[in-house]
Amino acid sequence: MINKDNITHHISQQFNAELEEVRSRLLAMGGLVEKQVNDAVNALIEADSELAQQVRDVDQQTNTMERDIDEECVRILARRQPAASDLRLIISISKSVIDLERIGDEATKIAKRAIELCEEGEAPRGYVEVRHIGEQVRKMVQQALDAFARFDADLALSVVQYDKTIDREYKTALRELATYMMEDPRSISRVLSVIWALRSLERIGDHARNIAELVIYLVQGTDVRHTGLARMAAAQAAKDEGQGRG
Amino acid sequence: MINKDNITHHISQQFNAELEEVRSRLLAMGGLVEKQVNDAVNALIEADSELAQQVRDVDQQTNTMERDIDEECVRILARRQPAASDLRLIISISKSVIDLERIGDEATKIAKRAIELCEEGEAPRGYVEVRHIGEQVRKMVQQALDAFARFDADLALSVVQYDKTIDREYKTALRELATYMMEDPRSISRVLSVIWALRSLERIGDHARNIAELVIYLVQGTDVRHTGLARMAAAQAAKDEGQGRG
Repeated sequence: MINKDNITHHISQQFNAELEEVRSRLLAMGGLVEKQVNDAVNALIEADSELAQQVRDVDQQTNTMERDIDEECVRILARRQPAASDLRLIISISKSVIDLERIGDEATKIAKRAIELCEEGEAPRGYVEVRHIGEQVRKMVQQALDAFARFDADLALSVVQYDKTIDREYKTALRELATYMMEDPRSISRVLSVIWALRSLERIGDHARNIAELVIYLVQGTDVRHTGLARMAAAQAAKDEGQGRG
Repeated sequence: MINKDNITHHISQQFNAELEEVRSRLLAMGGLVEKQVNDAVNALIEADSELAQQVRDVDQQTNTMERDIDEECVRILARRQPAASDLRLIISISKSVIDLERIGDEATKIAKRAIELCEEGEAPRGYVEVRHIGEQVRKMVQQALDAFARFDADLALSVVQYDKTIDREYKTALRELATYMMEDPRSISRVLSVIWALRSLERIGDHARNIAELVIYLVQGTDVRHTGLARMAAAQAAKDEGQGRG
Protein backbone atom coordinates (compact mmCIF):
# COMPACT_ATOMS: atom_id res chain seq x y z
CA MET A 1 0.00 0.00 0.00
CA ILE A 2 1.30 3.42 -0.86
CA ASN A 3 1.34 6.34 1.48
CA LYS A 4 2.14 10.00 1.30
CA ASP A 5 5.81 9.33 2.00
CA ASN A 6 6.66 6.88 -0.71
CA ILE A 7 4.40 8.42 -3.30
CA THR A 8 6.31 11.67 -3.10
CA HIS A 9 9.77 10.14 -2.94
CA HIS A 10 11.48 10.79 -6.23
CA ILE A 11 14.93 11.11 -7.60
CA SER A 12 13.88 14.31 -9.27
CA GLN A 13 12.92 17.10 -6.90
CA GLN A 14 11.33 18.88 -9.83
CA PHE A 15 9.07 15.93 -10.70
CA ASN A 16 8.12 15.78 -7.05
CA ALA A 17 7.13 19.41 -7.09
CA GLU A 18 5.08 18.95 -10.26
CA LEU A 19 3.09 16.07 -8.79
CA GLU A 20 2.43 17.99 -5.58
CA GLU A 21 1.43 21.08 -7.55
CA VAL A 22 -1.13 19.32 -9.72
CA ARG A 23 -2.55 17.45 -6.74
CA SER A 24 -2.96 20.62 -4.72
CA ARG A 25 -4.64 22.28 -7.69
CA LEU A 26 -7.12 19.40 -7.80
CA LEU A 27 -7.84 19.87 -4.10
CA ALA A 28 -8.24 23.63 -4.52
CA MET A 29 -10.71 23.06 -7.33
CA GLY A 30 -12.48 20.55 -5.09
CA GLY A 31 -12.84 23.13 -2.34
CA LEU A 32 -14.38 25.58 -4.78
CA VAL A 33 -16.80 23.00 -6.15
CA GLU A 34 -17.83 21.91 -2.66
CA LYS A 35 -18.66 25.53 -1.87
CA GLN A 36 -20.70 25.71 -5.08
CA VAL A 37 -22.81 22.76 -3.94
CA ASN A 38 -23.34 24.36 -0.56
CA ASP A 39 -24.22 27.76 -2.02
CA ALA A 40 -26.57 26.28 -4.63
CA VAL A 41 -28.56 24.40 -1.99
CA ASN A 42 -28.75 27.49 0.24
CA ALA A 43 -29.77 29.68 -2.70
CA LEU A 44 -32.63 27.30 -3.43
CA ILE A 45 -33.85 26.94 0.13
CA GLU A 46 -33.50 30.60 1.07
CA ALA A 47 -34.78 31.86 -2.30
CA ASP A 48 -31.56 33.87 -2.67
CA SER A 49 -31.28 34.68 -6.37
CA GLU A 50 -28.11 36.71 -5.86
CA LEU A 51 -26.30 33.74 -4.34
CA ALA A 52 -27.66 31.55 -7.16
CA GLN A 53 -26.17 33.95 -9.69
CA GLN A 54 -22.79 33.76 -7.92
CA VAL A 55 -22.84 29.97 -8.27
CA ARG A 56 -23.46 30.33 -11.99
CA ASP A 57 -20.63 32.84 -12.34
CA VAL A 58 -18.13 30.51 -10.67
CA ASP A 59 -18.89 27.76 -13.22
CA GLN A 60 -16.64 29.39 -15.81
CA GLN A 61 -13.79 29.38 -13.30
CA THR A 62 -14.10 25.65 -12.53
CA ASN A 63 -14.23 24.87 -16.27
CA THR A 64 -10.92 26.67 -16.74
CA MET A 65 -9.42 24.90 -13.72
CA GLU A 66 -10.46 21.54 -15.15
CA ARG A 67 -8.83 22.23 -18.48
CA ASP A 68 -5.62 23.51 -16.88
CA ILE A 69 -5.28 20.54 -14.53
CA ASP A 70 -6.01 18.13 -17.35
CA GLU A 71 -3.40 19.75 -19.59
CA GLU A 72 -0.86 19.59 -16.78
CA CYS A 73 -1.58 15.85 -16.35
CA VAL A 74 -0.99 15.25 -20.07
CA ARG A 75 2.23 17.29 -19.91
CA ILE A 76 3.48 15.22 -16.97
CA LEU A 77 2.57 11.97 -18.74
CA ALA A 78 4.42 13.05 -21.88
CA ARG A 79 7.50 14.51 -20.20
CA ARG A 80 7.97 12.39 -17.09
CA GLN A 81 6.54 9.09 -18.27
CA PRO A 82 5.58 8.13 -14.73
CA ALA A 83 5.21 4.51 -13.67
CA ALA A 84 3.46 2.57 -10.90
CA SER A 85 1.95 4.73 -8.16
CA ASP A 86 2.94 8.00 -9.87
CA LEU A 87 1.10 6.88 -12.99
CA ARG A 88 -1.91 5.94 -10.88
CA LEU A 89 -1.80 9.35 -9.20
CA ILE A 90 -1.85 11.17 -12.54
CA ILE A 91 -4.64 8.95 -13.88
CA SER A 92 -6.70 9.45 -10.72
CA ILE A 93 -6.24 13.21 -10.89
CA SER A 94 -7.13 13.43 -14.56
CA LYS A 95 -10.30 11.41 -13.97
CA SER A 96 -11.31 13.07 -10.68
CA VAL A 97 -11.14 16.44 -12.32
CA ILE A 98 -13.87 15.37 -14.75
CA ASP A 99 -16.11 14.42 -11.85
CA LEU A 100 -15.38 17.68 -10.05
CA GLU A 101 -16.27 19.66 -13.12
CA ARG A 102 -19.56 17.77 -13.46
CA ILE A 103 -20.34 18.38 -9.79
CA GLY A 104 -19.89 22.07 -10.59
CA ASP A 105 -22.27 21.68 -13.56
CA GLU A 106 -24.92 20.08 -11.36
CA ALA A 107 -24.53 22.84 -8.76
CA THR A 108 -25.05 25.34 -11.57
CA LYS A 109 -28.23 23.52 -12.61
CA ILE A 110 -29.51 23.70 -9.03
CA ALA A 111 -28.74 27.42 -9.04
CA LYS A 112 -30.82 27.81 -12.22
CA ARG A 113 -33.74 26.06 -10.52
CA ALA A 114 -33.28 28.36 -7.54
CA ILE A 115 -33.64 31.39 -9.81
CA GLU A 116 -36.78 29.93 -11.43
CA LEU A 117 -38.29 29.24 -8.04
CA CYS A 118 -37.43 32.76 -6.80
CA GLU A 119 -39.38 34.16 -9.73
CA GLU A 120 -42.38 31.97 -9.02
CA GLY A 121 -42.38 32.92 -5.33
CA GLU A 122 -44.07 30.66 -2.77
CA ALA A 123 -41.93 27.91 -1.26
CA PRO A 124 -42.91 24.52 -2.67
CA ARG A 125 -42.88 21.18 -0.88
CA GLY A 126 -39.69 19.18 -0.84
CA TYR A 127 -37.37 21.79 0.69
CA VAL A 128 -36.74 19.65 3.77
CA GLU A 129 -35.54 16.85 1.50
CA VAL A 130 -33.35 19.20 -0.57
CA ARG A 131 -31.71 20.54 2.59
CA HIS A 132 -31.19 17.09 4.06
CA ILE A 133 -29.88 15.34 0.94
CA GLY A 134 -27.94 18.48 -0.04
CA GLU A 135 -26.05 18.50 3.25
CA GLN A 136 -25.23 14.82 2.92
CA VAL A 137 -23.88 14.98 -0.63
CA ARG A 138 -21.85 18.09 0.20
CA LYS A 139 -20.26 16.03 2.98
CA MET A 140 -19.63 13.17 0.54
CA VAL A 141 -17.76 15.55 -1.76
CA GLN A 142 -15.78 16.91 1.18
CA GLN A 143 -14.84 13.45 2.44
CA ALA A 144 -13.92 12.18 -1.02
CA LEU A 145 -11.51 15.13 -1.28
CA ASP A 146 -10.17 14.53 2.24
CA ALA A 147 -9.60 10.91 1.29
CA PHE A 148 -7.68 12.12 -1.77
CA ALA A 149 -5.62 14.55 0.32
CA ARG A 150 -4.67 11.89 2.87
CA PHE A 151 -4.56 8.82 0.59
CA ASP A 152 -7.15 7.36 2.95
CA ALA A 153 -8.79 4.27 1.40
CA ASP A 154 -10.94 3.60 4.48
CA LEU A 155 -12.56 7.01 4.32
CA ALA A 156 -12.99 6.60 0.56
CA LEU A 157 -14.72 3.27 1.08
CA SER A 158 -17.16 4.86 3.53
CA VAL A 159 -18.02 7.49 0.89
CA VAL A 160 -18.64 4.73 -1.67
CA GLN A 161 -20.89 2.92 0.79
CA TYR A 162 -22.78 6.07 1.73
CA ASP A 163 -23.94 6.57 -1.85
CA LYS A 164 -26.47 3.76 -1.30
CA THR A 165 -28.08 5.78 1.51
CA ILE A 166 -28.40 8.82 -0.75
CA ASP A 167 -30.00 6.75 -3.51
CA ARG A 168 -32.54 5.36 -1.05
CA GLU A 169 -33.44 8.77 0.39
CA TYR A 170 -33.67 10.25 -3.09
CA LYS A 171 -36.17 7.59 -4.15
CA THR A 172 -38.28 8.15 -1.04
CA ALA A 173 -38.30 11.91 -1.66
CA LEU A 174 -39.37 11.38 -5.29
CA ARG A 175 -42.31 9.21 -4.23
CA GLU A 176 -43.45 11.88 -1.76
CA LEU A 177 -43.15 14.65 -4.33
CA ALA A 178 -45.16 12.63 -6.88
CA THR A 179 -47.89 12.34 -4.26
CA TYR A 180 -47.86 16.12 -3.66
CA MET A 181 -48.29 16.70 -7.37
CA MET A 182 -51.28 14.38 -7.52
CA GLU A 183 -52.87 16.08 -4.53
CA ASP A 184 -52.26 19.57 -5.87
CA PRO A 185 -51.83 19.60 -9.66
CA ARG A 186 -51.32 23.37 -9.65
CA SER A 187 -48.02 22.78 -7.87
CA ILE A 188 -46.69 20.48 -10.63
CA SER A 189 -44.34 22.92 -12.33
CA ARG A 190 -42.84 24.11 -9.03
CA VAL A 191 -42.49 20.60 -7.64
CA LEU A 192 -40.80 19.51 -10.88
CA SER A 193 -38.16 22.19 -10.29
CA VAL A 194 -37.50 20.71 -6.86
CA ILE A 195 -37.33 17.22 -8.38
CA TRP A 196 -34.67 18.42 -10.85
CA ALA A 197 -32.67 19.88 -7.98
CA LEU A 198 -32.89 16.59 -6.08
CA ARG A 199 -31.83 14.71 -9.18
CA SER A 200 -28.78 16.95 -9.49
CA LEU A 201 -27.92 16.26 -5.86
CA GLU A 202 -28.19 12.53 -6.44
CA ARG A 203 -25.80 12.92 -9.40
CA ILE A 204 -23.37 14.86 -7.24
CA GLY A 205 -23.39 11.90 -4.86
CA ASP A 206 -22.54 9.61 -7.80
CA HIS A 207 -19.60 11.82 -8.79
CA ALA A 208 -18.32 11.91 -5.19
CA ARG A 209 -18.52 8.13 -5.22
CA ASN A 210 -16.50 8.03 -8.47
CA ILE A 211 -13.78 10.17 -6.89
CA ALA A 212 -13.74 7.95 -3.80
CA GLU A 213 -13.36 4.87 -6.02
CA LEU A 214 -10.40 6.54 -7.72
CA VAL A 215 -8.79 7.09 -4.31
CA ILE A 216 -9.12 3.36 -3.58
CA TYR A 217 -7.61 2.60 -6.99
CA LEU A 218 -4.83 5.06 -6.29
CA VAL A 219 -4.00 3.65 -2.86
CA GLN A 220 -4.56 -0.05 -3.47
CA GLY A 221 -3.87 -0.29 -7.17
CA THR A 222 -7.13 -2.14 -7.81
CA ASP A 223 -10.05 -0.94 -9.83
CA VAL A 224 -13.12 -1.09 -7.62
CA ARG A 225 -15.77 0.09 -10.02
CA HIS A 226 -18.49 -2.45 -10.67
CA THR A 227 -17.24 -4.49 -7.73
CA GLY A 228 -19.76 -5.52 -5.11
CA LEU A 229 -19.56 -3.29 -2.04
CA ALA A 230 -19.41 -6.32 0.23
CA ARG A 231 -16.45 -7.75 -1.64
CA MET A 232 -14.72 -4.39 -1.59
CA ALA A 233 -15.22 -3.98 2.17
CA ALA A 234 -14.03 -7.56 2.78
CA ALA A 235 -10.89 -6.96 0.72
CA GLN A 236 -10.22 -3.81 2.67
CA ALA A 237 -10.73 -5.58 6.01
CA ALA A 238 -8.42 -8.43 4.96
CA LYS A 239 -5.79 -5.89 3.91
CA ASP A 240 -6.07 -4.02 7.20
CA GLU A 241 -5.79 -7.28 9.13
CA GLY A 242 -2.79 -8.39 7.08
CA GLN A 243 -1.01 -5.21 8.04
CA GLY A 244 -1.89 -5.71 11.71
CA ARG A 245 -3.30 -2.24 12.06
CA GLY A 246 -4.70 -1.27 15.44
CA MET B 1 -3.27 17.14 -38.32
CA ILE B 2 -2.88 13.43 -37.73
CA ASN B 3 -4.50 10.79 -39.81
CA LYS B 4 -4.88 7.05 -39.73
CA ASP B 5 -1.59 6.58 -41.55
CA ASN B 6 0.78 8.51 -39.38
CA ILE B 7 -0.94 7.62 -36.13
CA THR B 8 -0.34 3.95 -36.75
CA HIS B 9 3.20 4.31 -38.01
CA HIS B 10 5.54 3.03 -35.34
CA ILE B 11 8.96 1.58 -35.04
CA SER B 12 7.55 -1.20 -32.99
CA GLN B 13 5.08 -3.44 -34.82
CA GLN B 14 4.00 -4.77 -31.47
CA PHE B 15 3.13 -1.32 -30.10
CA ASN B 16 1.22 -0.69 -33.30
CA ALA B 17 -0.78 -3.83 -32.80
CA GLU B 18 -1.53 -2.93 -29.18
CA LEU B 19 -2.88 0.49 -30.11
CA GLU B 20 -5.03 -0.96 -32.88
CA GLU B 21 -6.29 -3.68 -30.55
CA VAL B 22 -7.40 -1.32 -27.79
CA ARG B 23 -9.00 1.04 -30.29
CA SER B 24 -10.97 -1.74 -31.94
CA ARG B 25 -12.10 -2.95 -28.51
CA LEU B 26 -13.40 0.54 -27.80
CA LEU B 27 -15.31 0.52 -31.08
CA ALA B 28 -16.71 -2.95 -30.38
CA MET B 29 -17.92 -1.78 -26.97
CA GLY B 30 -19.40 1.26 -28.70
CA GLY B 31 -21.36 -0.94 -31.07
CA LEU B 32 -22.76 -2.91 -28.16
CA VAL B 33 -23.73 0.23 -26.26
CA GLU B 34 -25.37 1.75 -29.34
CA LYS B 35 -27.48 -1.40 -29.64
CA GLN B 36 -28.41 -1.09 -25.97
CA VAL B 37 -29.74 2.43 -26.58
CA ASN B 38 -31.75 1.25 -29.55
CA ASP B 39 -33.16 -1.77 -27.71
CA ALA B 40 -34.02 0.23 -24.60
CA VAL B 41 -36.03 2.77 -26.60
CA ASN B 42 -37.82 0.00 -28.51
CA ALA B 43 -38.56 -1.90 -25.29
CA LEU B 44 -40.17 1.21 -23.86
CA ILE B 45 -42.23 2.12 -26.90
CA GLU B 46 -43.33 -1.41 -27.71
CA ALA B 47 -43.86 -2.39 -24.06
CA ASP B 48 -41.48 -5.31 -24.59
CA SER B 49 -40.35 -6.35 -21.11
CA GLU B 50 -38.29 -9.25 -22.44
CA LEU B 51 -36.19 -6.92 -24.59
CA ALA B 52 -35.87 -4.55 -21.61
CA GLN B 53 -34.52 -7.42 -19.53
CA GLN B 54 -31.95 -8.20 -22.24
CA VAL B 55 -30.70 -4.60 -22.08
CA ARG B 56 -30.25 -4.94 -18.33
CA ASP B 57 -28.38 -8.22 -18.73
CA VAL B 58 -25.91 -6.70 -21.19
CA ASP B 59 -24.96 -3.98 -18.69
CA GLN B 60 -22.65 -6.36 -16.81
CA GLN B 61 -20.85 -7.11 -20.05
CA THR B 62 -20.20 -3.44 -20.87
CA ASN B 63 -18.94 -2.84 -17.32
CA THR B 64 -16.38 -5.61 -17.79
CA MET B 65 -15.39 -4.25 -21.19
CA GLU B 66 -14.85 -0.81 -19.70
CA ARG B 67 -12.58 -2.14 -16.97
CA ASP B 68 -10.58 -4.26 -19.42
CA ILE B 69 -10.05 -1.44 -21.90
CA ASP B 70 -9.12 0.95 -19.13
CA GLU B 71 -6.58 -1.50 -17.69
CA GLU B 72 -5.11 -2.01 -21.14
CA CYS B 73 -4.71 1.78 -21.52
CA VAL B 74 -2.87 1.98 -18.19
CA ARG B 75 -0.63 -0.95 -19.21
CA ILE B 76 0.23 0.77 -22.48
CA LEU B 77 0.96 4.06 -20.70
CA ALA B 78 3.23 2.30 -18.22
CA ARG B 79 5.07 0.05 -20.67
CA ARG B 80 5.21 2.07 -23.87
CA GLN B 81 5.30 5.60 -22.50
CA PRO B 82 3.66 6.97 -25.62
CA ALA B 83 4.13 10.58 -26.68
CA ALA B 84 2.31 13.10 -28.86
CA SER B 85 -0.53 11.65 -30.93
CA ASP B 86 -0.16 8.15 -29.43
CA LEU B 87 -0.54 9.63 -25.96
CA ARG B 88 -3.59 11.56 -27.10
CA LEU B 89 -5.05 8.37 -28.57
CA ILE B 90 -4.65 6.49 -25.30
CA ILE B 91 -6.07 9.40 -23.28
CA SER B 92 -9.03 9.72 -25.65
CA ILE B 93 -9.75 6.00 -25.44
CA SER B 94 -9.50 5.88 -21.66
CA LYS B 95 -11.91 8.82 -21.37
CA SER B 96 -14.32 7.72 -24.10
CA VAL B 97 -14.73 4.39 -22.43
CA ILE B 98 -16.12 6.13 -19.33
CA ASP B 99 -18.72 7.88 -21.48
CA LEU B 100 -19.62 4.65 -23.26
CA GLU B 101 -20.11 2.87 -19.95
CA ARG B 102 -22.38 5.68 -18.74
CA ILE B 103 -24.39 5.52 -21.97
CA GLY B 104 -24.89 1.84 -21.14
CA ASP B 105 -26.01 2.83 -17.63
CA GLU B 106 -28.57 5.28 -19.01
CA ALA B 107 -29.86 2.66 -21.46
CA THR B 108 -30.27 0.32 -18.50
CA LYS B 109 -32.25 2.97 -16.64
CA ILE B 110 -34.53 3.38 -19.67
CA ALA B 111 -34.99 -0.40 -19.69
CA LYS B 112 -36.03 -0.27 -16.01
CA ARG B 113 -38.62 2.40 -16.84
CA ALA B 114 -39.84 0.20 -19.70
CA ILE B 115 -40.41 -2.66 -17.28
CA GLU B 116 -42.30 -0.39 -14.85
CA LEU B 117 -44.46 0.91 -17.67
CA CYS B 118 -45.16 -2.63 -18.92
CA GLU B 119 -46.46 -3.50 -15.47
CA GLU B 120 -48.71 -0.45 -15.38
CA GLY B 121 -50.13 -1.16 -18.83
CA GLU B 122 -51.70 1.62 -20.89
CA ALA B 123 -49.37 3.65 -23.10
CA PRO B 124 -48.78 7.09 -21.63
CA ARG B 125 -48.26 10.33 -23.51
CA GLY B 126 -44.77 11.24 -24.60
CA TYR B 127 -43.95 8.13 -26.63
CA VAL B 128 -43.64 10.10 -29.85
CA GLU B 129 -41.02 12.27 -28.19
CA VAL B 130 -39.16 9.26 -26.78
CA ARG B 131 -39.04 7.63 -30.20
CA HIS B 132 -37.96 10.82 -31.93
CA ILE B 133 -35.29 11.92 -29.44
CA GLY B 134 -34.22 8.29 -28.97
CA GLU B 135 -33.53 7.84 -32.66
CA GLN B 136 -31.53 11.06 -32.75
CA VAL B 137 -29.30 10.31 -29.78
CA ARG B 138 -28.68 6.77 -31.04
CA LYS B 139 -27.46 8.35 -34.26
CA MET B 140 -25.26 10.76 -32.28
CA VAL B 141 -23.61 7.78 -30.53
CA GLN B 142 -23.13 6.04 -33.87
CA GLN B 143 -21.60 9.09 -35.51
CA ALA B 144 -19.33 9.84 -32.56
CA LEU B 145 -18.00 6.29 -32.89
CA ASP B 146 -17.67 6.61 -36.68
CA ALA B 147 -15.73 9.82 -36.13
CA PHE B 148 -13.45 7.93 -33.73
CA ALA B 149 -12.99 5.09 -36.22
CA ARG B 150 -12.09 7.45 -39.06
CA PHE B 151 -10.34 10.23 -37.07
CA ASP B 152 -12.92 12.53 -38.63
CA ALA B 153 -12.98 15.89 -36.81
CA ASP B 154 -15.64 17.34 -39.12
CA LEU B 155 -18.12 14.60 -38.31
CA ALA B 156 -17.23 14.93 -34.62
CA LEU B 157 -17.93 18.65 -34.76
CA SER B 158 -21.36 18.03 -36.27
CA VAL B 159 -22.15 15.67 -33.37
CA VAL B 160 -21.09 18.36 -30.88
CA GLN B 161 -23.29 20.89 -32.64
CA TYR B 162 -26.25 18.54 -32.81
CA ASP B 163 -26.36 18.25 -29.03
CA LYS B 164 -27.94 21.73 -28.93
CA THR B 165 -30.86 20.46 -31.01
CA ILE B 166 -31.41 17.57 -28.61
CA ASP B 167 -31.39 19.90 -25.60
CA ARG B 168 -33.98 22.12 -27.25
CA GLU B 169 -36.28 19.25 -28.18
CA TYR B 170 -35.89 17.74 -24.73
CA LYS B 171 -37.00 20.98 -23.08
CA THR B 172 -40.02 21.27 -25.39
CA ALA B 173 -41.01 17.67 -24.60
CA LEU B 174 -40.73 18.33 -20.86
CA ARG B 175 -43.02 21.34 -21.07
CA GLU B 176 -45.61 19.31 -22.95
CA LEU B 177 -45.43 16.46 -20.46
CA ALA B 178 -45.84 18.87 -17.52
CA THR B 179 -49.01 20.12 -19.21
CA TYR B 180 -50.32 16.55 -19.60
CA MET B 181 -49.78 15.97 -15.91
CA MET B 182 -51.72 19.09 -14.99
CA GLU B 183 -54.57 18.11 -17.29
CA ASP B 184 -54.71 14.55 -16.00
CA PRO B 185 -53.17 14.19 -12.52
CA ARG B 186 -53.90 10.45 -12.49
CA SER B 187 -51.27 10.08 -15.21
CA ILE B 188 -48.52 11.71 -13.10
CA SER B 189 -46.66 8.58 -12.08
CA ARG B 190 -46.66 7.14 -15.61
CA VAL B 191 -45.68 10.44 -17.21
CA LEU B 192 -42.84 10.77 -14.69
CA SER B 193 -41.48 7.44 -15.92
CA VAL B 194 -41.46 8.81 -19.46
CA ILE B 195 -39.76 12.00 -18.23
CA TRP B 196 -36.99 9.92 -16.63
CA ALA B 197 -36.52 8.04 -19.89
CA LEU B 198 -36.25 11.33 -21.80
CA ARG B 199 -33.76 12.63 -19.27
CA SER B 200 -31.63 9.52 -19.79
CA LEU B 201 -31.75 10.09 -23.54
CA GLU B 202 -30.65 13.69 -23.08
CA ARG B 203 -27.72 12.42 -20.97
CA ILE B 204 -26.81 9.93 -23.67
CA GLY B 205 -26.61 12.87 -26.07
CA ASP B 206 -24.25 14.62 -23.64
CA HIS B 207 -21.99 11.57 -23.48
CA ALA B 208 -21.96 11.26 -27.29
CA ARG B 209 -20.94 14.92 -27.38
CA ASN B 210 -18.11 14.22 -24.91
CA ILE B 211 -16.80 11.42 -27.12
CA ALA B 212 -17.01 13.67 -30.19
CA GLU B 213 -15.04 16.37 -28.33
CA LEU B 214 -12.38 13.78 -27.52
CA VAL B 215 -12.13 12.93 -31.23
CA ILE B 216 -11.49 16.60 -32.01
CA TYR B 217 -8.86 16.70 -29.25
CA LEU B 218 -7.32 13.53 -30.65
CA VAL B 219 -7.18 14.79 -34.23
CA GLN B 220 -6.34 18.45 -33.66
CA GLY B 221 -4.54 18.29 -30.36
CA THR B 222 -6.71 21.02 -28.88
CA ASP B 223 -9.11 20.69 -25.99
CA VAL B 224 -12.49 21.87 -27.20
CA ARG B 225 -14.51 21.46 -24.04
CA HIS B 226 -15.95 24.70 -22.72
CA THR B 227 -15.09 26.39 -26.00
CA GLY B 228 -17.85 28.25 -27.77
CA LEU B 229 -19.28 26.23 -30.64
CA ALA B 230 -18.91 29.18 -33.00
CA ARG B 231 -15.22 29.53 -32.18
CA MET B 232 -14.71 25.80 -32.59
CA ALA B 233 -16.42 25.74 -36.00
CA ALA B 234 -14.44 28.80 -37.10
CA ALA B 235 -11.16 27.16 -36.06
CA GLN B 236 -12.13 24.05 -37.98
CA ALA B 237 -13.05 26.06 -41.08
CA ALA B 238 -9.75 27.98 -40.91
CA LYS B 239 -7.87 24.71 -40.59
CA ASP B 240 -9.71 23.18 -43.55
CA GLU B 241 -9.02 26.27 -45.64
CA GLY B 242 -5.36 26.28 -44.69
CA GLN B 243 -5.08 22.75 -45.97
CA GLY B 244 -6.86 23.65 -49.19
CA ARG B 245 -9.30 20.78 -48.84
CA GLY B 246 -11.98 20.47 -51.53
